[in-house]
Amino acid sequence: MVSVAIVGANGYSGEELCRILAGHPGVRVVAVTSRQHVGKSVGEVLPRLAGHPGVGDLKFGASEVDVVLDSGAEFVFLALPHGLAVEFAKPLFLAGRRVVDLSADFRLRSADIYREFYGVEHGAPELLKEAVFGLPELHREEIAGARLVASAGCYPTGILLALAPLLREGLVDAGSIIVSSASGVSGAGRKAEAALLYSECNESLRAYGLPKHRHLSEIEQELSIAAGKSVVVTFAPHLAPMTRGIHTTIFARPLGDLGKIASCLEATYLRETFVRFSDTLPDTRNVSGTNFCDLAVRVDARTGRVILLAAIDNLVKGASGQAVQNFNLMSGLSESAGLL
Amino acid sequence: MVSVAIVGANGYSGEELCRILAGHPGVRVVAVTSRQHVGKSVGEVLPRLAGHPGVGDLKFGASEVDVVLDSGAEFVFLALPHGLAVEFAKPLFLAGRRVVDLSADFRLRSADIYREFYGVEHGAPELLKEAVFGLPELHREEIAGARLVASAGCYPTGILLALAPLLREGLVDAGSIIVSSASGVSGAGRKAEAALLYSECNESLRAYGLPKHRHLSEIEQELSIAAGKSVVVTFAPHLAPMTRGIHTTIFARPLGDLGKIASCLEATYLRETFVRFSDTLPDTRNVSGTNFCDLAVRVDARTGRVILLAAIDNLVKGASGQAVQNFNLMSGLSESAGLL
Amino acid sequence: MVSVAIVGANGYSGEELCRILAGHPGVRVVAVTSRQHVGKSVGEVLPRLAGHPGVGDLKFGASEVDVVLDSGAEFVFLALPHGLAVEFAKPLFLAGRRVVDLSADFRLRSADIYREFYGVEHGAPELLKEAVFGLPELHREEIAGARLVASAGCYPTGILLALAPLLREGLVDAGSIIVSSASGVSGAGRKAEAALLYSECNESLRAYGLPKHRHLSEIEQELSIAAGKSVVVTFAPHLAPMTRGIHTTIFARPLGDLGKIASCLEATYLRETFVRFSDTLPDTRNVSGTNFCDLAVRVDARTGRVILLAAIDNLVKGASGQAVQNFNLMSGLSESAGLL
Amino acid sequence: MVSVAIVGANGYSGEELCRILAGHPGVRVVAVTSRQHVGKSVGEVLPRLAGHPGVGDLKFGASEVDVVLDSGAEFVFLALPHGLAVEFAKPLFLAGRRVVDLSADFRLRSADIYREFYGVEHGAPELLKEAVFGLPELHREEIAGARLVASAGCYPTGILLALAPLLREGLVDAGSIIVSSASGVSGAGRKAEAALLYSECNESLRAYGLPKHRHLSEIEQELSIAAGKSVVVTFAPHLAPMTRGIHTTIFARPLGDLGKIASCLEATYLRETFVRFSDTLPDTRNVSGTNFCDLAVRVDARTGRVILLAAIDNLVKGASGQAVQNFNLMSGLSESAGLL
Repeated sequence: MVSVAIVGANGYSGEELCRILAGHPGVRVVAVTSRQHVGKSVGEVLPRLAGHPGVGDLKFGASEVDVVLDSGAEFVFLALPHGLAVEFAKPLFLAGRRVVDLSADFRLRSADIYREFYGVEHGAPELLKEAVFGLPELHREEIAGARLVASAGCYPTGILLALAPLLREGLVDAGSIIVSSASGVSGAGRKAEAALLYSECNESLRAYGLPKHRHLSEIEQELSIAAGKSVVVTFAPHLAPMTRGIHTTIFARPLGDLGKIASCLEATYLRETFVRFSDTLPDTRNVSGTNFCDLAVRVDARTGRVILLAAIDNLVKGASGQAVQNFNLMSGLSESAGLL
Repeated sequence: MVSVAIVGANGYSGEELCRILAGHPGVRVVAVTSRQHVGKSVGEVLPRLAGHPGVGDLKFGASEVDVVLDSGAEFVFLALPHGLAVEFAKPLFLAGRRVVDLSADFRLRSADIYREFYGVEHGAPELLKEAVFGLPELHREEIAGARLVASAGCYPTGILLALAPLLREGLVDAGSIIVSSASGVSGAGRKAEAALLYSECNESLRAYGLPKHRHLSEIEQELSIAAGKSVVVTFAPHLAPMTRGIHTTIFARPLGDLGKIASCLEATYLRETFVRFSDTLPDTRNVSGTNFCDLAVRVDARTGRVILLAAIDNLVKGASGQAVQNFNLMSGLSESAGLL
Repeated sequence: MVSVAIVGANGYSGEELCRILAGHPGVRVVAVTSRQHVGKSVGEVLPRLAGHPGVGDLKFGASEVDVVLDSGAEFVFLALPHGLAVEFAKPLFLAGRRVVDLSADFRLRSADIYREFYGVEHGAPELLKEAVFGLPELHREEIAGARLVASAGCYPTGILLALAPLLREGLVDAGSIIVSSASGVSGAGRKAEAALLYSECNESLRAYGLPKHRHLSEIEQELSIAAGKSVVVTFAPHLAPMTRGIHTTIFARPLGDLGKIASCLEATYLRETFVRFSDTLPDTRNVSGTNFCDLAVRVDARTGRVILLAAIDNLVKGASGQAVQNFNLMSGLSESAGLL
Repeated sequence: MVSVAIVGANGYSGEELCRILAGHPGVRVVAVTSRQHVGKSVGEVLPRLAGHPGVGDLKFGASEVDVVLDSGAEFVFLALPHGLAVEFAKPLFLAGRRVVDLSADFRLRSADIYREFYGVEHGAPELLKEAVFGLPELHREEIAGARLVASAGCYPTGILLALAPLLREGLVDAGSIIVSSASGVSGAGRKAEAALLYSECNESLRAYGLPKHRHLSEIEQELSIAAGKSVVVTFAPHLAPMTRGIHTTIFARPLGDLGKIASCLEATYLRETFVRFSDTLPDTRNVSGTNFCDLAVRVDARTGRVILLAAIDNLVKGASGQAVQNFNLMSGLSESAGLL
């Protein structure tokens, strides 16, 4: 049994981590922390988790590095806002803990790009080279050996799984990529903001964050690596009236033989447990509560464009499930342990 | 008071027509018809409309041409599926009634394109030249004088209002247009299909109808007219978990001065009652239950693309409100009568 | 044209008031106020109302008594929290304005009961005797002549419309009444609270405010008046995952002839515009966006109980529509002006 | 590994059974059947389950008794409509298979009451004495030894868990019980009916099935057993705009010491894995996707009534989770295997 700690366990990703890890056969959760709920049990604060063996009766400790160190956890999951995560990641890393960070703090290789997109200086630029981008289907081997994994973001996950193999093979024009995504409201976190109220989001579909959403930084970094050259994309995120799920529709110009696009994706994901490439159009409902990413492709013969579609649960494959998948790789467990 | 009839009044568009016309100060509804509910009152079948003066106590007549002719209605609204609408439109038109058709039957100028997109022969190709495409902001004058108006479709309305002025002025590259739309479930009508059940659509976001949705036929027809040359677009419609609303996001390459795009749209819609071009990103919630189309534009300086956004209520500006707006023009009433 | 002011126009009730009054043929809105949005236009703050003739371009004034007095409004609608409303109602009343208060501040005849249920001293107990309880179907005549009307609360409206006639006629046992209601989330107002977030309320049904919800005070006051003796009821409110609507189910023991219950309600509401007593089970969907209250009754022969059902839109018949209905009575306009 | 078959695996309960059993460590699913989808894989028909080891690639067999017998399944889950289930249960039982029936066919001890509530003759009245009512918290020991278990219905589960202990101890007046429940739409099954369409159910809350819902038969049977005398209750079910969940609010008159009600429930459920009695008001959101039933109690001192609250996921503790809990007991596995 690997002992783990969850820092920031009371947000949506933290709660989902608790849920997944409570049912994980190879894990013992030894500490959960929260700024607001110190001393209360997980089950009191998150009634959904009451009575869950392994986490329901755990008491929240303070979100402090020492609390985590004292817990004896070998692995630490950080479910914190960017900027705050680095303050935990650095000392924990230096103290020899292995860290899975769900924030954006270690996803970018460049502190300059971090500053450009997040508007603040990076808190530990010297650690960026230690961090591995935590999308297992792209970076499985590096993740397995890493001591600091930056679990991939929610929007990037579906986008990268659809596009990276095609760019790697030169099957789509890197300059032609346009992405339109719609996310459920849980993607915005458990923040008491008027714009996220039920009565504001119900029967509401709206774009936001145009034209330079922060996730573009990691999307373009990873697509550029796949393409072997700089890739810049247009990205339009939307908020949809649902709790969970991200649906992504990608438009691009194919290069060369159109038929190779489907066969490339099929071959890439044939043996992947969590990517289901099929002829069925992805639906967020089919991946909700799961760690799957559903993918499909359609060719628009009239315009010569290809349309790629992806669906994930933003809190699972887009956050906590992916973090556990990364953790499984890091700790040598079955990649799907606790996730099926 | 203009006397009107509504054929097919028990679908979602028909119900919405009843609601709007019940509150219209210049209209008297003299007949409503339905295949299934003959003899029942509107209020019995559509309890929302019970007690509404003017329509609640009206009894459904049979959906037959003679019933409509005998009602004395000067204007007839057809809220029927395509293919069926033409069977009413032709005899009513020949009998001198003025017709507002909410179906697709008279939106296309070409019977060949109708056949290509709808898979059946057109039932009255000789009438296509009589019909005017019923999008008032584009064709106000022809609508005013028309005897047969084909009210524009739901997806096309937002797309055309955003793009037609820009193509007319040559401000976007006609070959670069990509459209991603998401519609509420009422757009699929009141059909007892498993895929439209609450439990299938809730928490579900999915694309459908790729890559050649029927509405492309009217979208491309009208965009080609605006551009003065053939325009072909990529269109990805989605189903979103809400009852009403269509949100459309359009990506295109600008031609010439980027700043002209906003000023063109602003100038075009400055005096339009029902198009609100502003800096606020459109949200279906803000147009729900109204005849407004909200528009905005964003420039993606990183990729050189322009992003246009539009929101309407698919049952109002996308169907019944627009039909009434057309009717108002045809009958010389204030264009916004009954709609504000 | 009657000139009116709306104080607190940026909450859900205030927004709905703006919407209704913008379309009211006998009203000119001369002032809207808000604490947060002074100087902005209604359309900027509430984009749904942009472009609405009569209100869209109005600028929010400060929520101060002098601003209202200076506006020249003859009537003032107060859409404010309880405790704050009285601070406006008193000086405006004393200055000769006629006031429709949507808060609870003037609904109770007793300052003691106000203190018991609201936990604060009443700010103007001397005015309680001036105020009329604003449920037109119960107090039409007093409302017409009143200078201060306390528009009835959302839960009380459906409950009182169902029960008051039966208690007046002695048809149900006053000691047997149990009420279970479910409200849409807009009933909680536009407050940035975590418990009201989309992701907390979606797929959530929960009771709250047990066992002594504040609305019990006005429910029991009015039922006691109807019964001619003290009535105490059990009331369980719930929050349901929808924006609008209140559904109420009432259980009681009938007294005497069971058949008289339906006939009493039928006779009471036969000529009422906004109460639809019928055999159809009420559904919040059928009253959403309308000022109707739908009522029905079922007899449970197995237990000898009667079940009464009611549905309203909490923001219309439960708040702003009712306020306008009261205003119409007060100003001698048609009771349904602006509401159909 | 116990080999099991699922008959009727393509409805909502069947799908949920597949999902739960796919993750069950002690089960091998050897057959799934369906009338409509013979020859297709589970993953094709139910894309959510594609790629799930153990079920995703299973092919649907015909819903025929021989198919089930030939599969070698020791246990058979019947996820069929009432009336049809008995046609499978009887021959399978006689052939020595152990059966968990999710329908109502074997829940009632009396064929007369079955006829009264279901309107048809029971298909195998001679087997009613073999069947055990499958609510583990009430009948654990009989279930363990049973060969035919009738898994308890969705509404009854929450109602019985709240009331049975109190009636057993004589703590509430058996004649005073009034139940108001609200169910998510999945409770109505995957039936293509207009009333269950998204656009009909969204923003809709309505009562239905008044005053004699079929589940009253099993509710009253089990409450009467607990009370040791005939119990008749008033029951008002409602449909709420959510996919999953049942929330139940029960009103009753306490007998004797009020404080004993909470202590009785606390003591009863202290060691139960799946019943969480606490001070927190139950919320369907907290039990969604789980096999928990959340319970709470409030005393209404003003009226002397007690209010009991319960929440379950209708598809899990109200159907498929409970069926698996029953199966676990029957097969000697840990009661929570596959359910946490």
